[in-house]
Amino acid sequence: MKTFKMGLVLFLIAMSATAQNQYISDSLSIRKIYDMSLLNGKSYEWLDHLSNEIGGRLSGSYKAQQAVEYTKAQLEELGLDKVWLQPVMVPKWTRGEREFAFVQTGPGVTRNVNITALGGSIATPAGGTKAQVLEVQGIEQLAEYGRENIEGKIVFFNRPMRADLIHTFESYGGCVDQRYSGAKEAAKYGAVGVIVRSMNLRLDDFPHTGSMSYGDLPVKDRIPAAAISTNDAEYLSGMLKIQKDLEFSFKLSCEQHEDVQSYNVIGEITGSEFPEDIMVVGGHLDSWDIGDGAHDDGAGVVQSMEVLRLFREIGYTPKRTLRVVLFMNEENGLRGGNKYAEVAKSKGENHFFALESDSGGFTPRGFGITASKEQFESVLSWKKLFKPYLIHYFERGGGGADISPLNGGGTVLAGLRPDSQRYFDYHHAANDTFDKVNKRELELGAATMASLVYLVDKYGFEKPIQNTQEIAD
Amino acid sequence: MKTFKMGLVLFLIAMSATAQNQYISDSLSIRKIYDMSLLNGKSYEWLDHLSNEIGGRLSGSYKAQQAVEYTKAQLEELGLDKVWLQPVMVPKWTRGEREFAFVQTGPGVTRNVNITALGGSIATPAGGTKAQVLEVQGIEQLAEYGRENIEGKIVFFNRPMRADLIHTFESYGGCVDQRYSGAKEAAKYGAVGVIVRSMNLRLDDFPHTGSMSYGDLPVKDRIPAAAISTNDAEYLSGMLKIQKDLEFSFKLSCEQHEDVQSYNVIGEITGSEFPEDIMVVGGHLDSWDIGDGAHDDGAGVVQSMEVLRLFREIGYTPKRTLRVVLFMNEENGLRGGNKYAEVAKSKGENHFFALESDSGGFTPRGFGITASKEQFESVLSWKKLFKPYLIHYFERGGGGADISPLNGGGTVLAGLRPDSQRYFDYHHAANDTFDKVNKRELELGAATMASLVYLVDKYGFEKPIQNTQEIAD
Repeated sequence: MKTFKMGLVLFLIAMSATAQNQYISDSLSIRKIYDMSLLNGKSYEWLDHLSNEIGGRLSGSYKAQQAVEYTKAQLEELGLDKVWLQPVMVPKWTRGEREFAFVQTGPGVTRNVNITALGGSIATPAGGTKAQVLEVQGIEQLAEYGRENIEGKIVFFNRPMRADLIHTFESYGGCVDQRYSGAKEAAKYGAVGVIVRSMNLRLDDFPHTGSMSYGDLPVKDRIPAAAISTNDAEYLSGMLKIQKDLEFSFKLSCEQHEDVQSYNVIGEITGSEFPEDIMVVGGHLDSWDIGDGAHDDGAGVVQSMEVLRLFREIGYTPKRTLRVVLFMNEENGLRGGNKYAEVAKSKGENHFFALESDSGGFTPRGFGITASKEQFESVLSWKKLFKPYLIHYFERGGGGADISPLNGGGTVLAGLRPDSQRYFDYHHAANDTFDKVNKRELELGAATMASLVYLVDKYGFEKPIQNTQEIAD
Repeated sequence: MKTFKMGLVLFLIAMSATAQNQYISDSLSIRKIYDMSLLNGKSYEWLDHLSNEIGGRLSGSYKAQQAVEYTKAQLEELGLDKVWLQPVMVPKWTRGEREFAFVQTGPGVTRNVNITALGGSIATPAGGTKAQVLEVQGIEQLAEYGRENIEGKIVFFNRPMRADLIHTFESYGGCVDQRYSGAKEAAKYGAVGVIVRSMNLRLDDFPHTGSMSYGDLPVKDRIPAAAISTNDAEYLSGMLKIQKDLEFSFKLSCEQHEDVQSYNVIGEITGSEFPEDIMVVGGHLDSWDIGDGAHDDGAGVVQSMEVLRLFREIGYTPKRTLRVVLFMNEENGLRGGNKYAEVAKSKGENHFFALESDSGGFTPRGFGITASKEQFESVLSWKKLFKPYLIHYFERGGGGADISPLNGGGTVLAGLRPDSQRYFDYHHAANDTFDKVNKRELELGAATMASLVYLVDKYGFEKPIQNTQEIAD
């Protein structure tokens, strides 16, 4: 009995020592990753080029093609095992001339307001669309007003994002139906156009574009749709209170073209032990056209590229295959994400893990993770390794639009969660520019992603690592 | 035995129900605080006035006096039990004419660089100070170079802030001796002036001022000192590598005056049960003069005022006395903080708790807390109540400069810890302006402070609250 006890004690000491060594070794590897990103990072320089030398990269545009070529060339310089382009046909929508709008409160009494066409909208007639305005707080109010109050009018969707929600993506989720489906629904009641309050939590003069859809609405019934800045939405709403019959006039010149050829850009470090297990890190290469797409999603693109570069720099070769995928056409079609999953499926590839960064280049807080309870427990067991970097947010659910088509095949999905308070100040607007991205915050995000990939590669999701309180605290 | 067991079970159920009710009640109170701050907050409007209508509020200036009067008037409108001014004599230093500097690499070949006088520096002679430059990486290098290499030269302190540290205040702490003591130390070796690389983690054109001291150096030995922008520090350092004998010329017109009368602004809600137990929330009303002092520390001022307003708005009367203290002269003297503690001591006041916000108006992450281990355990037991608001950082140590003189008397000290990555982009520079503060982030900080004060008031620090896993998760 005594011998048994002694054996147990020795076993526990040995186990604890192993756990401790492992913990220290992982700590040091992660520290190396952060050091490399913060002291010798490349992500900010790449983002500078994508934002300032190329700029807004709308699917099917020349700039999107420039972004494909630039990122492919940069990946080729990293000495990866393989870099390639994956062809994908994408929609091509062009904005045309700069949009124009004004509110008319009397003969010759007008005030210009800031609008931007929603992505996918048709143009107005050449002379613009001019009509009285009906303000509503959401799609569900259309039925209440009915055709008699809507026909011939411009419907103004003005439900603001909720300021009391802490997660701003929740506020966005609670409003974006107005932008995506407002035109389709208002058209059914005979509206001649739609103006949507910008998805922006603050009051400013920037209109925010974004995708919309007419669904299966016949072409002849489609109506033009634009976003209005939050300041001008407040102005319009205020004026409507004192002059119900004011007229709103706007002109859009946008156009939908035939699909064109484009590409996902892919680079790979082949796994040393389990090359058939694929881990993806990615963001989307396309962006809206009115800003530089620095936060959405230039940041995610360069952070994803940086993950592979950091692995190379610290001399870590993953056991599993690590791919960076720069997806095309997230904003208005998701063709890149769908194509990637389709090809993966047709080749019978095993996607072990996929991580997307598409929430801006702000200070990282953690990850949203779509995984089984057991897999999630594994991730939670790594949490303490992130504590020195103030990474604290690990919650179930989440990933990213581009990697979502991989869902269901057993792939664990994750999305980087940066601080979200400022994201909708810039999202899809002309002020989503390079100067809004802080170098350190961007680099911390890249290092945080690389650290998670490192741990996924090392431990998989089979069981939580030993992580005793004494070691970790 | 059976009866006893049954009794225990009933007791445990009852206890658990109490804990649960308490947890729910606290959750709801805190939700109310955040809702009020985010939906109906006043902090941003106050900050707008302090930053844009008043501006930089250097101690002893007319603007500092305007800030005293404005905040006193605003506190009076909140219907507090008491609002008063606490007189304090403060140093008065003026910058004079805008500083001017250039690097001369040949006869008539000059390039202007961006500098700003350090607070407390003497002026240069009227014609400026012109001399060759010795670049050093820190004060300790002065002894290595010795008088023979330093006499008659301008010493250029160029050790940058460390980019690899996650807590930027640590990077600051590792560099700021160059700014604070560089002139005093270099003067001992016969230097004629000092140029210090700005305390800024990014490369840009803004010089960052801040306090410096000559210590007990005789007046005749004092030399002028200025900060240079990080871009220009890089330029100067690069030029020195290729031309060691280049000359640096700079002109400062600053002046130290007699002390002048100023005030701490104080408002109070008297405690309903323990009025003699005082809780302080505060920030400092003075700022540097070259920006608006929006982050440093306009944010802390308005957040502290907001704590009392939020309590009034949600109808919570604290058991303990709650004071907001807007301290004067944190930046170049700490006279306000010292005076407040001195008066408190002379009156025998019992300061139960003091919380300062002086790290910028960025997204709050948590608190640094100076308390005994047992007191800190109490605070940790509240942690889960903050989780919905992404407040996760609770570490021992910290508080704030203004409340530090209260230390040692048993007062628990705390400092709000906002995200610190961008703070030194703006700290003490001309770009510390209102537009750099995000409304939501500011409001989240105010609500986070109010929530901590609510819990301190309700539970004190005597024992951790019951906070079972099931309830809290």
